[in-house]
Amino acid sequence: MARRMGTQTAELTSKPRILGTYSIVGPKEGKGPLKSFFDEVLEDDTCGCKTFEAAETQMQLKAARQVLSSVNLKEKDISYMFSGDLINQLMPSCFMAREVNIPFLGLYGACSTFIEGISMASMCLEGGFGDNMLVVVSSHFSTAERQYRAPLEMGSQRSPASQWTVTGCGAVVLSSKGNKAPYVTHITIGKVKDYGITDPNEMGAAMSPAAVDTIKQHFEDTGRKPSDYDLIVSGDLGAIGKQITIDLLKEYGYDISSNYIDCGDEIFDDQVQATNSGGSGAGCCATVMSSMIYKGLVCGKYKRVLLIATGALLSAISSLQGESIPAIAHAIAIECGGE
Amino acid sequence: MARRMGTQTAELTSKPRILGTYSIVGPKEGKGPLKSFFDEVLEDDTCGCKTFEAAETQMQLKAARQVLSSVNLKEKDISYMFSGDLINQLMPSCFMAREVNIPFLGLYGACSTFIEGISMASMCLEGGFGDNMLVVVSSHFSTAERQYRAPLEMGSQRSPASQWTVTGCGAVVLSSKGNKAPYVTHITIGKVKDYGITDPNEMGAAMSPAAVDTIKQHFEDTGRKPSDYDLIVSGDLGAIGKQITIDLLKEYGYDISSNYIDCGDEIFDDQVQATNSGGSGAGCCATVMSSMIYKGLVCGKYKRVLLIATGALLSAISSLQGESIPAIAHAIAIECGGE
Repeated sequence: MARRMGTQTAELTSKPRILGTYSIVGPKEGKGPLKSFFDEVLEDDTCGCKTFEAAETQMQLKAARQVLSSVNLKEKDISYMFSGDLINQLMPSCFMAREVNIPFLGLYGACSTFIEGISMASMCLEGGFGDNMLVVVSSHFSTAERQYRAPLEMGSQRSPASQWTVTGCGAVVLSSKGNKAPYVTHITIGKVKDYGITDPNEMGAAMSPAAVDTIKQHFEDTGRKPSDYDLIVSGDLGAIGKQITIDLLKEYGYDISSNYIDCGDEIFDDQVQATNSGGSGAGCCATVMSSMIYKGLVCGKYKRVLLIATGALLSAISSLQGESIPAIAHAIAIECGGE
Repeated sequence: MARRMGTQTAELTSKPRILGTYSIVGPKEGKGPLKSFFDEVLEDDTCGCKTFEAAETQMQLKAARQVLSSVNLKEKDISYMFSGDLINQLMPSCFMAREVNIPFLGLYGACSTFIEGISMASMCLEGGFGDNMLVVVSSHFSTAERQYRAPLEMGSQRSPASQWTVTGCGAVVLSSKGNKAPYVTHITIGKVKDYGITDPNEMGAAMSPAAVDTIKQHFEDTGRKPSDYDLIVSGDLGAIGKQITIDLLKEYGYDISSNYIDCGDEIFDDQVQATNSGGSGAGCCATVMSSMIYKGLVCGKYKRVLLIATGALLSAISSLQGESIPAIAHAIAIECGGE
């Protein structure tokens, strides 16, 4: 049984283990600074499909199958699969789920979906709803760009603050067993925050207040401080949003500048890859956390990390209707398994 | 702690109570056969807003506030809010969540979202993640029609098998306390089924195989039979899908014809309201289950009901790309509280 801490956090007592992860990225991500950490780099981001939506589906399917194989589990061993992406009506996730024989729960939290999924899966393990849960989250540059912004064929100029949607999928198996695997200790579910940003090219600025709110709340609820973590990792705030987050948290008395990275800021090299403020998309933190961060926990490089994923809850319709951009952030604390 | 039964079902031991419900419907639904059961009928389905998306947001917000008020709880008393709708990137749910001070988890299961939400909320109560959870699910004829089919202004002719998206919102508070309230005893999470239907006007036919699969699995997992329930209620299969479901379940040896209703089949009177195969949309079962079914449980008319919500996991993009329609169904068993 979980134990509530403060207003938004729960401490898990059953140690839901992250038994294994699998990360697939597109060709561009595979040329970036983190290339050596990913399990698979696609040579062709269409995955041989006629549409990019079908390609994203295939990417999810491959990640789901590979992560199961890596931990020696079959589809029938998984109690529930939690999956999500950025596309209208979760098309890639729903069409992936059609191909597997696993009970399916669809989630939408924009780029926060990966941590939303791990949170839900951990909650289900904690409550005794099964022994193994699967989380699959993706984004694809070419499905997202034409849905949220403009057709790729237009070749629109990119704003300096813009971010590049990551083509990638992260899949994770969580389990009630697996003594040496890293495990989830705390979950902090976020509230929706909207500070009035209306420019969909300013994702970092729109999402950082949500990140700040959830991180601050996590520290208040748990009584922890930044130095209690070897690493604090946010999802896809990018270079600009990362700096805003550091600055705003300082105003609340929390200095995270020395042990904080952002997946969107890490995944590309802007000087070489022209990605402006960095990577974004639900697949950004899903692939970075499933690769570099997870491997760091498994090898003992990090003993305790705080992962925060932020989501910008806009749509093409909301932007056209002149609405500002609501955002959310969820956080989980993970410890390495040791003995 | 929950107890797994069979392959897809969990039995809950903590009796997550449905403490209260609130249902709002549009003017057309308010003229239908169930009008006396709804808590509120809108006179104006724009809710005084400039856009239908904003109207759907307002409908959700009102339902959330009213259900909290009806059970004497404040926003701060709610641990998590689970919310969803049919609109791209869950615009109504996300924008509703912006107005309340409650941790938010967005769900997408098309018209299955209401039961997905109650399932998740029950799981969180079972796992000790809080004392009170809120579920808010809606659909709106005028936001859904233009998104999935054609602009309303076109006045397109409706196919005989088509269903009418319900304008309505159902909100539910689940709680670990409340001795006399109806409570959730079992959850059966569904798998995605696709029998190759490609016509988005044939929702009932597309979704009924998923309903059949989940109902059959629920009976197999629990060892129950149709007569163990006073009432079996599906979400929005409509008249055609309801009949297919009865027929297919007979082939598996389950005869549900004598104690089975479908919310989509109940909510409109086709003879008077020209709704063809009936109502649909995430708000259809959310409002009918939150009103007629819940009140029947509270007054002791029903001792034990099985609720199934089906979702058609198509999108405008998937239909245009020639894809068939994957569908899903989740089921929960509820018993009346008694003493």
